[in-house]
Amino acid sequence: MKHLAVFAFLALALPAAAQEAAPPVTPGSVIAAASAEEWIAIAPEDLLVMDLAPDARGNPRRVVIQLMPPPFSQPWVENIRTLAAAHWWDGTSVNRVQDNYVTQWGDVTEAKPLPDGVVSPTTRYVVAFPSMPGPTTAFFPVTGYMRTMWIQQYAVSQVIAGTSEEPNAEIIADAISRQMGDSYALETAILDGWPIGLGRDAEQTEAMWPVHCYGAVGVGRNVAPDTGTGAELYTIIGQPQRHMDRNLAVVGRVIEGMEHLSSLPRGSGELGFYTEEEADLRVPIVSVRLASELADAPRFEYLDTASESFARLVAVRANRNDDFYTVPAGGVDVCSVGVPIRRAQ
Amino acid sequence: MKHLAVFAFLALALPAAAQEAAPPVTPGSVIAAASAEEWIAIAPEDLLVMDLAPDARGNPRRVVIQLMPPPFSQPWVENIRTLAAAHWWDGTSVNRVQDNYVTQWGDVTEAKPLPDGVVSPTTRYVVAFPSMPGPTTAFFPVTGYMRTMWIQQYAVSQVIAGTSEEPNAEIIADAISRQMGDSYALETAILDGWPIGLGRDAEQTEAMWPVHCYGAVGVGRNVAPDTGTGAELYTIIGQPQRHMDRNLAVVGRVIEGMEHLSSLPRGSGELGFYTEEEADLRVPIVSVRLASELADAPRFEYLDTASESFARLVAVRANRNDDFYTVPAGGVDVCSVGVPIRRAQ
Repeated sequence: MKHLAVFAFLALALPAAAQEAAPPVTPGSVIAAASAEEWIAIAPEDLLVMDLAPDARGNPRRVVIQLMPPPFSQPWVENIRTLAAAHWWDGTSVNRVQDNYVTQWGDVTEAKPLPDGVVSPTTRYVVAFPSMPGPTTAFFPVTGYMRTMWIQQYAVSQVIAGTSEEPNAEIIADAISRQMGDSYALETAILDGWPIGLGRDAEQTEAMWPVHCYGAVGVGRNVAPDTGTGAELYTIIGQPQRHMDRNLAVVGRVIEGMEHLSSLPRGSGELGFYTEEEADLRVPIVSVRLASELADAPRFEYLDTASESFARLVAVRANRNDDFYTVPAGGVDVCSVGVPIRRAQ
Repeated sequence: MKHLAVFAFLALALPAAAQEAAPPVTPGSVIAAASAEEWIAIAPEDLLVMDLAPDARGNPRRVVIQLMPPPFSQPWVENIRTLAAAHWWDGTSVNRVQDNYVTQWGDVTEAKPLPDGVVSPTTRYVVAFPSMPGPTTAFFPVTGYMRTMWIQQYAVSQVIAGTSEEPNAEIIADAISRQMGDSYALETAILDGWPIGLGRDAEQTEAMWPVHCYGAVGVGRNVAPDTGTGAELYTIIGQPQRHMDRNLAVVGRVIEGMEHLSSLPRGSGELGFYTEEEADLRVPIVSVRLASELADAPRFEYLDTASESFARLVAVRANRNDDFYTVPAGGVDVCSVGVPIRRAQ
């Protein structure tokens, strides 16, 4: 019944805010105002903790990765849990840093045996999309979150614009297309905390898939039909090359310590691989563990993307209007929404 | 009469290519096949050469920036030429590196006097857009390039798809909206070598503006209505935050040496500024010169974005289909098209 909560929000909370001369609303102020109940804990078995060798000054370098939840990319995610449990990455290294593209890590010899059961999945990179209900139909297990979010987003936009009429299916559809235009998907959305694309595949079946944003972690592979195992991983360190969507498995995202992967010297070899002459630039990976295996693992939480605060965040990002930004864009890219993630309070 | 050349291209060159079982067409193969006449030299007065202090290994660090041509951002670009001629940046430094956002350089004291005539422009960040002709009208000074390019792009797409019918205004408009969907502009295009956005401003006037892509160089400023002078510059080192479009002046792009700005250690201060404790991380700027002032300046050229090869490149980027990418996206982001730029042959 989340969609009903949205309309209550519309009717009660927002008109007052629109009438007062309040300080400018910014993404930061929206996130700070979110209630404790709107934050969702990330399970330790969904966190991968990678410790790189300390930097030249002796500073520790820890990278924390949140693994992709169902229904996306689960065969690779299971491989990754198996590899972490086997401590397979310990002693491997970061081997490739290509500017405006990816940093990639794994076994530079490509000869290290994999644990039992780790094989390249034969599944596709997309999942079937259940029939799309209209935005005002009853709450639906998969699309409900998304549609609810859009209703909320639209509601907030209306209030920002000084309008308070109740949104209907037509203007919501219009708002969706205006606010998240995209070259790579028919529609984009944030589903259960993750940016996704939606569209029709070659067989005209409705499908959805996780998208490559800055910090996304994906599975390196050889030419098709190889799908990779998850032993070789990369993260996006520049403008996301979204044509990778549906062609490579997105298995997670870096949620802390991204700078330890993005600020490394670029490799001068083909595709940004470090050459043998630059072998000393390969950063050693000391260990990779699931947080569930670590006694002192950090705990994280993300802002519920079906919450009112998240809906408000999307609307504010799409309509920045404060001391610095005076020309609102009127839209926001699926990768620029940014799902707030923080250390657990 | 460039639009006529396009149709000749359609009728003669492409059907043959579609029938043969040729090796996969990739962005690299398209660029390699471009003819010498399709490359346009960049004038030395449009190139800024910034030499940073050598890195820890003693390697030189040279960054080359192409300045924005008319009609965009010219008051700031003129300031930048004045600052370079006065050798104003010599002895300044890189002061801010914020992950997934910007690297910024200039006078860390913010007290260095500016040369005569360098003041914050009072103009806007957009330029008026002359009335839009239909895509099949006669060649038009400003929009002609863009429309021609889209016709070419569509033509190539059609052939890739195995269709050879002549495009009309309706299907071209459809192709435009499908192939370059965007959250920040009504339409996007590549105009005279630069990615731009088009839309209506607050007064409902049609306007166009340069967009923030990875490597774009923009003008740092204080809160509005300050517009900056160009003495303080930044470049985008992550996912472009396109809400900066129309709120800050884009004055150029890094065309060589980007890694010297993108791979620097991130600052731990607010907004990624280096703190006083990290003052040694500020990279000294040895000199900044217009290439027209340097005897040994490198020379560059870019692929004519009204050329057939560029149209083909856009189509191939939007429809990758080779040994590695087997699911074509059907579109490409204005920032992911990538205008090919190389050392002059």
